[in-house]
Amino acid sequence: MEILRYPDRKEWKALTSRALASQAAQVTATVRSIMDDVASRGDEAVMDYEERFTGKRPAELVVTAEEIDCAASKLTAELRTAIEAAARNIAAFHRAEVPEPVEVETTPGVLCMQRPVAIEHVGLYIPGGNSPLFSTVLMLAIPAKIAGCPHIAMCTPAGPDGTIHPAILYAAKVAGVDHVYRTGGAQAIAAMTYGTDSVPRADKIFGPGNRYVMEAKQQATLCGCAIDMPAGPSEVLVIADSEANPLFVATDFLSQAEHGPDSQSILLTTSEKLLDTFPDILDKLLSRLPRRDMMMHSLEHSRIILLHDDAEMMEFSNLYAPEHLILNHRDAGRLCGMVRNAGSVFVGPWSPESAGDYASGTNHTLPTSGYARAYSGVNIDSFMRKITFQRLTPEGIASLAPTVIAMAEAESLDAHALAARVRTSDYK
Amino acid sequence: MEILRYPDRKEWKALTSRALASQAAQVTATVRSIMDDVASRGDEAVMDYEERFTGKRPAELVVTAEEIDCAASKLTAELRTAIEAAARNIAAFHRAEVPEPVEVETTPGVLCMQRPVAIEHVGLYIPGGNSPLFSTVLMLAIPAKIAGCPHIAMCTPAGPDGTIHPAILYAAKVAGVDHVYRTGGAQAIAAMTYGTDSVPRADKIFGPGNRYVMEAKQQATLCGCAIDMPAGPSEVLVIADSEANPLFVATDFLSQAEHGPDSQSILLTTSEKLLDTFPDILDKLLSRLPRRDMMMHSLEHSRIILLHDDAEMMEFSNLYAPEHLILNHRDAGRLCGMVRNAGSVFVGPWSPESAGDYASGTNHTLPTSGYARAYSGVNIDSFMRKITFQRLTPEGIASLAPTVIAMAEAESLDAHALAARVRTSDYK
Repeated sequence: MEILRYPDRKEWKALTSRALASQAAQVTATVRSIMDDVASRGDEAVMDYEERFTGKRPAELVVTAEEIDCAASKLTAELRTAIEAAARNIAAFHRAEVPEPVEVETTPGVLCMQRPVAIEHVGLYIPGGNSPLFSTVLMLAIPAKIAGCPHIAMCTPAGPDGTIHPAILYAAKVAGVDHVYRTGGAQAIAAMTYGTDSVPRADKIFGPGNRYVMEAKQQATLCGCAIDMPAGPSEVLVIADSEANPLFVATDFLSQAEHGPDSQSILLTTSEKLLDTFPDILDKLLSRLPRRDMMMHSLEHSRIILLHDDAEMMEFSNLYAPEHLILNHRDAGRLCGMVRNAGSVFVGPWSPESAGDYASGTNHTLPTSGYARAYSGVNIDSFMRKITFQRLTPEGIASLAPTVIAMAEAESLDAHALAARVRTSDYK
Repeated sequence: MEILRYPDRKEWKALTSRALASQAAQVTATVRSIMDDVASRGDEAVMDYEERFTGKRPAELVVTAEEIDCAASKLTAELRTAIEAAARNIAAFHRAEVPEPVEVETTPGVLCMQRPVAIEHVGLYIPGGNSPLFSTVLMLAIPAKIAGCPHIAMCTPAGPDGTIHPAILYAAKVAGVDHVYRTGGAQAIAAMTYGTDSVPRADKIFGPGNRYVMEAKQQATLCGCAIDMPAGPSEVLVIADSEANPLFVATDFLSQAEHGPDSQSILLTTSEKLLDTFPDILDKLLSRLPRRDMMMHSLEHSRIILLHDDAEMMEFSNLYAPEHLILNHRDAGRLCGMVRNAGSVFVGPWSPESAGDYASGTNHTLPTSGYARAYSGVNIDSFMRKITFQRLTPEGIASLAPTVIAMAEAESLDAHALAARVRTSDYK
């Protein structure tokens, strides 16, 4: 962990930059061959890769309705209740995000409209591994359902015993996923990119994954499929003043660290005292947490930075463009207005990142690696297109034609001019 | 031109598919070396490539305010008026698209918000070549300005005499572009991706271009820069019934054909009569248009398809997902409700594509190659991020904590659970 006091502004660029993951050539090539193979051999290829990578050939890619229905009984009532409560909040927030149609008569007789229309085929990817990311099922499937996507498919790998974690299946049921497929890794992304007999082709693929999954999603974008956003390690930037409870700050810091060894946590503060006491508090908490070793790795590239004032802290934060920004500050409301670049912002001492990671209602699929400068987190727009429509009357085209003709001719596009001209009364 | 009568449904997939441009390895490599060179040598490298590719080294990349101010006097009053009229309509429509903030208390004491925030640094690319695409300047810069983007930069190549077409500069001034740079091709995209002494780094790059520009934009996405959307040849699908004026249909068809030899026009109709008369009408018009030869190329891969009824035509269109969809049909309003996949829709006989290309108010930067299945055309959202905020009260986190803790522990993320627990009164 690096502790910096009043770093020179010339160093800020380096302090806020992240190494963009350039994929090893071997990963790119492996994924390319999996993609091509699935494109040509479909389900057979998917099955072959499942067998090769997991040691077990799935009997069937489609998860049966019975298996999904059984999931509830394998969870504690407490967890079921929690999943349902989170789903309600996520639904309430995303429902409020649904855009309205727009209609403007820009010139008499020229009516222009913009209508949101749901994407038809949505593919969700949920990784396997140690942590069953059922929260991500909610974060992707609930807005897809609210947007009105008619076909929501989900791929997720089975565990060593051939079954899928019941919390993932239960979340899929609660959120309204239409079909679940038992496959993971690049072969799952390939199946959604090209479509197979079992797995439908997706117009857009969402969800996290390892570097093979990420590379496959990148390659999918070259095959006519859209993806949610580019991915990178998770990160948090905490802004804390002298009133911030160090215990709150430390748990937020460590929440980020436990996401993975490449996660980054940054603390900005104007408080010398917090700077001095913070490392000890972290150490004490660390000793009590099971993922201690992995968190130590993550903390190696974390930073605690002392700055002069609020304006400097906000400037640094906007330069970093954090995925998660926590404003643990007496004046958090005012600082909100200064946020230019961030994925999601947690305002005041009572708003830990984990609230938004699971249950408050905001989405947890957010832009990392500085992509918050240009990308939004997943939201209802991610599942829709805004299609424009225009309807002109004879009077509308008559009054617009001189403009269209002058511009088209100046761009040497004569047929464009002609298409306007033939619709006016002076065309012979 | 292919004429098909009632093609079998099994052929529809082939009839609606486009070859996705896979870039030649040589293009990828050339662009990679230009990108790397500009990243390391900045303006010097940009100047070198300008010299190499145009035969002329620009004295200065920055276009002076004087040069921009002089542009107006080089245009006819008619063209100036047209540009201003188009700009007003585009502004009126895009202003109506500006999203509202969202605020929901999902649980008592848990306030979730979504606020639209403009992207800080926007880079626009306008190609040179035979047609000065000043209309694209309006389509990109006006929404950027309305979104509130504080820094709008534009790169465009100079002509053989070292100057930029005055219509491009005038449109830039009308639309509110902050700075114009005299550079084109992959070196312009590289300059905006990495930033140089002259050209500021862009968070997101917009605009059309040749395959070097497109490849450079793709590579920019791997360097932390976002782009508007993937690109492909322009296309139109016209749906016409027996009442459609064949002259209107033919001029719309040819408008598309004149965009370039790889443009595609498709006509769907239920009218045998239109099918029979259409080729002759096209021929007559063609003989009168200056870009005849290029249009003949484009028409080679165009199709006229006779189908049984409206439902079939709409189904085919949704499968194709056209960039432009023209509904020249007595019942166009009803067909609008059946549009699932399209970039922009032109409703009724009086709405030629050229109206939307220039002046009605809708945007003309639209998804091609079937990308309309997942992408919107450029709109006000393209220039903003929707940042989420949440503010919890002590009561809010107290009531949310059991949900957060149950879910975090089930995902084996104990620090996440702890961050919620320390904020409740039962933490010791």
